Amino acid sequence: MRVDLLIRHAAQVVTPQGRSPARGAAMGVLQIIPDGAVAIQDGRIAAVGPTSEVEAQIAEAAEIFDARGQAVVPGFVDPHTHLIWAGDRVVEFELRLRGATYLEILQAGGGILSTVRATRAASREQLTAETRSRLDQMLQHGTTTAEAKTGYGLEWEAERRLLDVLHDLNGVHPLDLVPTFLGAHAIPEEYRGDPEAYVERVIEDMLPRLAAQRYPAAGPWCPPWADGRAAWFCDVFCERGAFDLDQTRRILETAKGLGFGLKVHADEFEPSLGAVPLAVSLGATSVDHLVSTPPEHLALLARSATVGVVLPGTSFGLATGHYAPGRQLIDAGGALALATDLNPGTSWCESMGMMVALATRYMKLTPAEALTAATLNAACAIGLGHEIGTLEPGKQADLVILDAPDYRYLAYRYGVNLVHTVVKRGKIVVREGHLTY
Amino acid sequence: MRVDLLIRHAAQVVTPQGRSPARGAAMGVLQIIPDGAVAIQDGRIAAVGPTSEVEAQIAEAAEIFDARGQAVVPGFVDPHTHLIWAGDRVVEFELRLRGATYLEILQAGGGILSTVRATRAASREQLTAETRSRLDQMLQHGTTTAEAKTGYGLEWEAERRLLDVLHDLNGVHPLDLVPTFLGAHAIPEEYRGDPEAYVERVIEDMLPRLAAQRYPAAGPWCPPWADGRAAWFCDVFCERGAFDLDQTRRILETAKGLGFGLKVHADEFEPSLGAVPLAVSLGATSVDHLVSTPPEHLALLARSATVGVVLPGTSFGLATGHYAPGRQLIDAGGALALATDLNPGTSWCESMGMMVALATRYMKLTPAEALTAATLNAACAIGLGHEIGTLEPGKQADLVILDAPDYRYLAYRYGVNLVHTVVKRGKIVVREGHLTY
Repeated sequence: MRVDLLIRHAAQVVTPQGRSPARGAAMGVLQIIPDGAVAIQDGRIAAVGPTSEVEAQIAEAAEIFDARGQAVVPGFVDPHTHLIWAGDRVVEFELRLRGATYLEILQAGGGILSTVRATRAASREQLTAETRSRLDQMLQHGTTTAEAKTGYGLEWEAERRLLDVLHDLNGVHPLDLVPTFLGAHAIPEEYRGDPEAYVERVIEDMLPRLAAQRYPAAGPWCPPWADGRAAWFCDVFCERGAFDLDQTRRILETAKGLGFGLKVHADEFEPSLGAVPLAVSLGATSVDHLVSTPPEHLALLARSATVGVVLPGTSFGLATGHYAPGRQLIDAGGALALATDLNPGTSWCESMGMMVALATRYMKLTPAEALTAATLNAACAIGLGHEIGTLEPGKQADLVILDAPDYRYLAYRYGVNLVHTVVKRGKIVVREGHLTY
Repeated sequence: MRVDLLIRHAAQVVTPQGRSPARGAAMGVLQIIPDGAVAIQDGRIAAVGPTSEVEAQIAEAAEIFDARGQAVVPGFVDPHTHLIWAGDRVVEFELRLRGATYLEILQAGGGILSTVRATRAASREQLTAETRSRLDQMLQHGTTTAEAKTGYGLEWEAERRLLDVLHDLNGVHPLDLVPTFLGAHAIPEEYRGDPEAYVERVIEDMLPRLAAQRYPAAGPWCPPWADGRAAWFCDVFCERGAFDLDQTRRILETAKGLGFGLKVHADEFEPSLGAVPLAVSLGATSVDHLVSTPPEHLALLARSATVGVVLPGTSFGLATGHYAPGRQLIDAGGALALATDLNPGTSWCESMGMMVALATRYMKLTPAEALTAATLNAACAIGLGHEIGTLEPGKQADLVILDAPDYRYLAYRYGVNLVHTVVKRGKIVVREGHLTY
């Protein structure tokens, strides 16, 4: 066998084995190969195993990377981001430190709506440049695929422009983006007196237009149901002050009828409105946040095919002290994924390693569970579990070489970037921390 | 005026104005100069001000750095680290996640003593290489001066070897190190049955030998009282399971008589043993940790000349949820500093930016107070407040150029390194995140 890239003599090659206890091996089960190797051909993994065994299969390697003293893990998948916006909310951050609540800031016209104003006003070039710098940060921190939501446009042309920019970036940046339509992120200012009219607008105008919108293929391997769609998923922010349960249901049912995958922002702040049972009943791919989800809804989620996505960065960013019950969802047999929630208001952090550090400390995940949550389960949360998220022959060759001998350093050390080298579709796109794409 | 380096057109040049409310301007008072400039000559700051005013004073600049869109702040000072050790404690980290306490691990022969074994066994080359890689990380995260404690030797030759390595690194690495003797870090295994004998050894043998030990000048500008000393400070870990209050007093009194500056690890875990009043009465330069310090001791500290050093990384690293009452110390008029506590057991993090992110969220410091705590007050906590920690003419030219337009981004964004360029004694030692020294 001739290969393009052979990574060998890694201290460990580590890959998740199980998505959830309910569906095969437990989340904490990893395959750990000491003195491991990964062989890559045509952007896909050709072989994984002990270096001696992999080398025995290979006649020639175009490039060899000796990873002595380094652990190799799958590229991180970030399944919940709001990465496309303009401007910042640093002033609001300081207000919040002094005691203002998220909903108080929202009701005063700040919060999401201030980013909507800045994003609508930004030129396409500014939006592209600011978003691209975040994509570079994500890639340098080992994220090789990410979900990206709209939601700072809140009108058809502005939302479509966000999807256009995401599509363009997908074509030129190595990080693969999975687009999600989040028109139902907040009630826009112009509908403040009549939120129901905005819900109707989303249902009767925006979603049908979006469903008809097709882009030529770009970005990640695309599952057939999402083929060519401008957005793969439709998401709704179900929360007091945003969209209530009935509005959420109507939007999601419409989206489902139009062939979109479904996601829901559920139970982020206020006592649960019941979004988890709704999401499960509609067959949502993921249900996200889960900070105030009651135990009976967690149990329901754990028995379903829906992935629970938790966002410890939001709890950290807001310093609420309240973290989602990730441990309990795992213990109940659920499939848990981690994401950054990257956004300018509550969690401006591009690093999935930071999410691992937070989840092990504040949600009591083991380092092994946190790795599964940041790779395989995160891939499942965006419909790509068969394509990425593990190091197995046939999968896309997305992987991270750490500046550490043990994958557990991702949790143990914190606040610094342990990503040394990043391979995306078989190409080295970050080497010794520097972008090389 | 001819200068070596002119940094100009910075979005902001930001420098602390006050150390504590009790001693002049409050900790939260900053000088913020929009479109600012800093001129540097012979490793010292020659001028600071609006770009137009600074440029008017300058006839020629050997190098010009345009910092458009970037904030400039003083180099970070990390006044409490245990940066010299060998090996790791990643296994213990996972045990702790599963519920074992720090003191349980210590009593089982793990904890500090396992690092003592690894450090004693390591070759000098290994120790130097491992420590140097941490110094590089610190520098890339904007730390330009750090305190460095011994304490993983716990016998004369092993402790002296640590000081030798620190001294050598000080000579070759741009980051300046201030050495502290922490022979009283733990009771070594060989004295387990007779801790008092080890205390006698520290007092009657190690401290007098250390006081006689002189090194040729290396590293930072040295205040006269520390001139040529192998260690500037003596520190004691005053805690149940380590050294009791009487032992702490006897060690510190001996050290004071021998001319060392004093530091104390006080109230880190267990209910207070009374180390703060002791430290204040002895005129200690700093008293560190303060997690369980009672209000009356905080009030005493606030009225003293001793700096309170808080270590939010330790609380984060251990995921205790208990942070030191930094807000209360500031409100009482005390001078507060931040440090990483960099060590392999409780907080392996080289980033002072991460400490700012933690302190603003979990100790409710404002971003301005946190900046003062990470620069000027941190310099005061190691006896260097007159030399570093602010951007003022005459001070050593140690500064950081951020990849951010506002110093508050240090708190607002988190989990990624916002340091773009680092200047140490007037030389650019990190540029666009890459080491250039």
